[in-house]
This record gives sequence, C-alpha cells and structure tokens, in this order.
Amino acid sequence: MLNFDYRNPTHIVFGKDRLAELDQLVPANARVLVTYGGGSVKRFGTLDKVITALGDRVVFEFGGIEANPKYDTLARAAELARRESIDFLLAVGGGSVMDGTKFIALAAKFDGDSSSLLHHGFNPVPVTEVLPVGTVATLPATGSEMNAFAVVSHQGGKFPVTHPQSFPVFSVLDPSLTFSLPKIQVANGVVDSFVHVVEQYVTFPVDARVQDRMAEGILKTLIEVGPVTVAEPENYNARANLVWSATSALNGMIGSGVPADWTTHMIGHELTAMFGIDHAQTLAVVLPSVWRVRKEQKRAKLLQYAERVWDITSGDEDSRIEQAIAATQAFFEQVGLKTRLRDYDVPQERIADVVAALEAHGMTALSETGDLGLDSSREILELAW
Amino acid sequence: MLNFDYRNPTHIVFGKDRLAELDQLVPANARVLVTYGGGSVKRFGTLDKVITALGDRVVFEFGGIEANPKYDTLARAAELARRESIDFLLAVGGGSVMDGTKFIALAAKFDGDSSSLLHHGFNPVPVTEVLPVGTVATLPATGSEMNAFAVVSHQGGKFPVTHPQSFPVFSVLDPSLTFSLPKIQVANGVVDSFVHVVEQYVTFPVDARVQDRMAEGILKTLIEVGPVTVAEPENYNARANLVWSATSALNGMIGSGVPADWTTHMIGHELTAMFGIDHAQTLAVVLPSVWRVRKEQKRAKLLQYAERVWDITSGDEDSRIEQAIAATQAFFEQVGLKTRLRDYDVPQERIADVVAALEAHGMTALSETGDLGLDSSREILELAW
Repeated sequence: MLNFDYRNPTHIVFGKDRLAELDQLVPANARVLVTYGGGSVKRFGTLDKVITALGDRVVFEFGGIEANPKYDTLARAAELARRESIDFLLAVGGGSVMDGTKFIALAAKFDGDSSSLLHHGFNPVPVTEVLPVGTVATLPATGSEMNAFAVVSHQGGKFPVTHPQSFPVFSVLDPSLTFSLPKIQVANGVVDSFVHVVEQYVTFPVDARVQDRMAEGILKTLIEVGPVTVAEPENYNARANLVWSATSALNGMIGSGVPADWTTHMIGHELTAMFGIDHAQTLAVVLPSVWRVRKEQKRAKLLQYAERVWDITSGDEDSRIEQAIAATQAFFEQVGLKTRLRDYDVPQERIADVVAALEAHGMTALSETGDLGLDSSREILELAW
Repeated sequence: MLNFDYRNPTHIVFGKDRLAELDQLVPANARVLVTYGGGSVKRFGTLDKVITALGDRVVFEFGGIEANPKYDTLARAAELARRESIDFLLAVGGGSVMDGTKFIALAAKFDGDSSSLLHHGFNPVPVTEVLPVGTVATLPATGSEMNAFAVVSHQGGKFPVTHPQSFPVFSVLDPSLTFSLPKIQVANGVVDSFVHVVEQYVTFPVDARVQDRMAEGILKTLIEVGPVTVAEPENYNARANLVWSATSALNGMIGSGVPADWTTHMIGHELTAMFGIDHAQTLAVVLPSVWRVRKEQKRAKLLQYAERVWDITSGDEDSRIEQAIAATQAFFEQVGLKTRLRDYDVPQERIADVVAALEAHGMTALSETGDLGLDSSREILELAW
C-alpha cells in the first residue's frame, strides 16, 4: 500500500426530506448567495424549498451557471458576492454548479486577476481566505459534493482547481430531488461514477485490499442499479444507491494509498472542449481504448477486474481482459451512452486537432506511471473512433 | 437505504516514516500533553521519536493509562492538563489510550464533576469547549483513531462517551510502529475489527449496496491478512491492510444508512468488567451465540454473509447459516482466540451475575430492533459457555 493522506470534512446529509434542515446547516444571520444552473431547480420547485428553508436570512440568487462552467460567468458571480458582502455560498444543482461555486468561493476573496487561479493544476491555489460553500446536490455524477476539486472552462480549455478549504461544509443529498432529471443525465451520471472508480482501480497492484474491494463494490452496485435507475427514475432505493455510489467514487476513500490514472478524463476533457460532447460520453468513448492500448501495463488489475467485477474466469488472460472491456462497453451502451467517437459525429481527421490540444495543455505524460505520450493518445483516439 | 448523516473530519496520515510530520501537524507554540499507556511506547522508542518531532514545544507527559481506561486515571490527567494550561493532547498508543485521551479532552474543559459525563450514552456530552486531540496509533483494533467515541471504565461499568468535537484532529497510522506488538494483541485487533464490521452488517437488509459491499470487502481482507499478520509481524503490506481495515471498520462509512446491532459489544463489556477478559476475546465468545439465537431476525443478512464473505452456497438455508457461523468461529480460533466462555475459566453459574449486570446497566432492550431482552442475553451466554 502506498503512503497516503486522507481528510474529508464534508458533512453529508443524506436521505428523504432533508431540505428543511438547511436552516440548521447554514449559519444564522449569514448573507447567502444561492447559485444554480439553467433553471430546472426553479421548474421543479427545489429552489423555492431552499429559499423557504433559509427563513429570514438575506438571500441573493445567481442563476445561469452553465454545464462545464465558464470562468467569465463565475467571475461575475464572485464580483456579486464581493459587492454584497456574501458570507455563505449555497450551490443548488449538479457538478457544474457545485464546481463553479467552489471557484466563486476562491475568487470572491482573491485580490487580483482570478483567472490566474486556473493555472495551478492539482496544487492548492494561493488563496488565504475562502468563502464557505454548502451544496444541495441534484445530480449524482461528479462527486463534487464531497471533494475539494472543481473544473472550470476558459478559452477552450478545462482547468482543475483545488484548495484545502474547497470541501463543501455540508452537502444535502436527497435522492428524490433527482427523480425529475432527464434520462440521459442519469445515464451520464452512472458512467461518470463508474469511470471515476476504475481510474483509481485499474492501474497496477499495490496490495491495497480494502480500497480494491470498496472500488469493486461501487462498480458492482453501479452495474446492478444503473439500468434500473435509468428505467425507473422514481425507484427510491435504486436512485439512493446511485447517489451514494457517485459520492463514494470520488470522495478520496477508494483513492487512498493507490495509484490513479486520469488519462481517460484528460483526453475526454479535450473532446468536450472541442466538440461539446457531454463529459460522461467522452469517458464512455475513451476508456475502452485506454485499456486496450495499455493492456500490458494494466494486465494484473484488468484480470482482477474481470474476475471480481464481471465474474469472468474462463479463457486465457488476453481473452478474459477483452471480455471485461467488452462487458464494460456493453454496460455503457445498456444505460444509453454510445461508445464510439464516430457516434458523436466527430470526423476521424479531427483526431490530430485533439492531439494538438493535448499537447498545448501539457498533457504529454499521462497515466499512473506518467509515460503515456501523445503517440499513445493518438492511438487511443484512433481506436475509439 | 435509511437516511443518514456522515461527517468525519479526522486527517489520516498513513504509512511509513510519518512521525516527523508531527512538527507540521501539531500547532506551533502549543503546550502539548503526550499521553500513553504501560510503557511499551517508551520501550520501543516511539515516544522518543514523538518528543523529538515536537521540537521546542513545551511538552508534558502522562503515562499509565491502563487497558479499559479508568475514570480516576483520566480525571488526574485532566487535572494536569488544566493546571499546566495544556492546549493540545497527543495520544500515543492503542484504543485505550486514544479513548482515554478523548475523555481527558472533554474533562479538562468541564467545570464540575466530570464523572457526570459518563452518563450520556451515545448522546453528545454537554461540554462547550474540547481540547484538540491528535493520535499516533500503535495498535490496529478499535477504530478510535478515526471516530468520536470513547469507552471509559468506572466502578465496574464501561461507559460510552461522545461529542461532535471528539474526532481526533489527525491520526498518524504507521503500520511499522505496530510490528513489536505481542501476537495476542494483534489477534485481538483482527477480531475486534471483524466484529465491528459485522455489527453494522449482519442485521436486516435495507438495500444499502455500497455499504454492504464495503463491509464485505473489509471482512474478506481481515480473513485474508489476519492469520498472515499474526504469523509475520514485520510483513508490512499484511499489517498495513489490517491497520486500514481496523480504521475503516469504525469510521462511520460502512455504518451510514444501515441498522446496527451492538449486542455483542454490550454483553462483552460486562464480561470484561466482571472477569477481566480482553475486549476482543469477549466478542469472539459472544458473537457466534448472538447469531445463533437471533438467526430468524438476521436470516437474510446471514445468508448474504455466508455467500459473499465465505462463498458458502451449498446446503439449505439453515445449513448455510450454520456453516458461516462455524467458519467465523474457526477464523477467530485460527488467529489465536478461544471462542467459548468456559475457555476463560468463567464458571457457568456466574452467567446469572452477568445478566444482573446487564440489567443494572439498562441493557434490557438490545439489538438492531431493540427487542433483545435479558432472557435472550441469558440464552446467548449459556450457548456461549
């Protein structure tokens, strides 16, 4: 097992009918900025319930945080927070709203050009004061509700941002708030969560048994409940298991003491930025090819994945690995996502542009061992086409 | 899945050679009280390394915290902390030292008779200020390094104590610090951790799939590494997996959203208080009989446990359940613990005294459904004899 640090102070408030507790969770007398996205939280009444729960606190609203939230939008919200002396941010929405609000919390207290905060990668941004953020999560997918990471889009790139104080203070996770989501967003959430897990699991063995078994447990849960929760949106238990899987996938627990390979996310980010393909759909496209191209480096864990997650035990090693990759791809298709780049109308000749973008963003040494170069990325994209 | 709250702010510092980081983890200028037990941390040099890492901070020491720490001992330490204006407590030891230090942290800031803090059960004690506690955990077993609970002994009883601020600020878990433990203490740790998991798992089903799979994952890990780490104390990976299993068993994660049945611990506490049997050994004695007596109430989860943890799939339901209970008992014996009450020289006629003690301590409605009365406790003890 590798040495590790684990710390996650977010208070999870999970279950039915928990929104009224916002009154206890948000500091009394706080000046609150409620942030949200495209208006579905208005349409389905969630925003009204949130505002009601906040009682007589001074509440401002900032809507319109888009999918893959843009720096310019977030900078406007930070300016509002500064102008109105906001002291608590409450994000109501999915990963984009939560990520965006974490950035607002950093930018609102930052003197200087906050776009400079986009250029620190996975290192903490140099900010000394951060506004506290709470969330009401309405889309199970990104894990943002229980981690300190955000991804912000700016000038054609997607930039990770983090800080030790970027964990939400609390996150209210009421699975029934997600019943009204479009099927495709639920399917995206299933695949996004699944890929988060395997990126921390299908690497090389370090004898981290609890983490491996936990990862396998989340994967098996997603395989069991994914198709059910897409087909039956109001099945509470299925949705509750998806919500907790999504959170558990990226709260740091399964990633403690093991290597991680974020190649799929890094290549996927470029596909979203360049072609506007949904984040999870880029992952469904890229992952199978990453595994095929990196079969030798990942052989031991791919075999473990085949046996423990898919019960594949017959055939020689290469056959078992290919069966597991095919089963994964079939699972993504089963919940409703296409898994070939051509399915998303990307011309094969644009692959060169994607590789150029990877190069421009410094993504030239990906993988758990830092040796996946642009040639391999090209091979992955060709194979995924 | 049941509604739940999960919050655990402890910073885990896991791995080899982490002690020097105490200098960053403990606040600069803190007046530190280092607490420990019977002296093995002195003998094996851990205490020296801790003191060295604390540099030029003002450091006091309080040793002699016994197994099943006594209120009177802890009250003396609290008095010392108060007298010397201590502002940080650093527990170096196993569960008893960590539990005891959590109590010192509460008592040191409490005006009045701190023995009154023993009578709040699992409700938070009425204390407004709590000294911060860090730990250097030298025995993988109780999970105290990453939860807000303590158990304190007083006048023949064992009393749970908790407070929202009783989570350690940090816990340094270096598996190699545990290499020098006597074999029996390691075996005790394996069994204590195992029982913590099943008490949150072998109850009744609530469709909490991630939690169930995580529980099963910890159990399988303990079954795999338990005998190895008892036999090979300096096998780092085996010990590291035991340490992380022990912490994961009782940090709240697998217990979120599921029922729990602490019957085995409650009956076990009386056996420790009355006969001085090691805590884990009381659990090894009591658990199999709890399951046999409560077979009907736990049928579905016992069958799931048999299949998923022990791969038992042949025979009718009752046979599969009995096979699983026998396998569990054999596992406890395999790591080195006896599993019959008579093995610990308890006369059968003293069972009546144990039942009387349970009654005196209000333990008359145990189990996940609160319907396990004194007659069932007597039946469990007779069966366990």
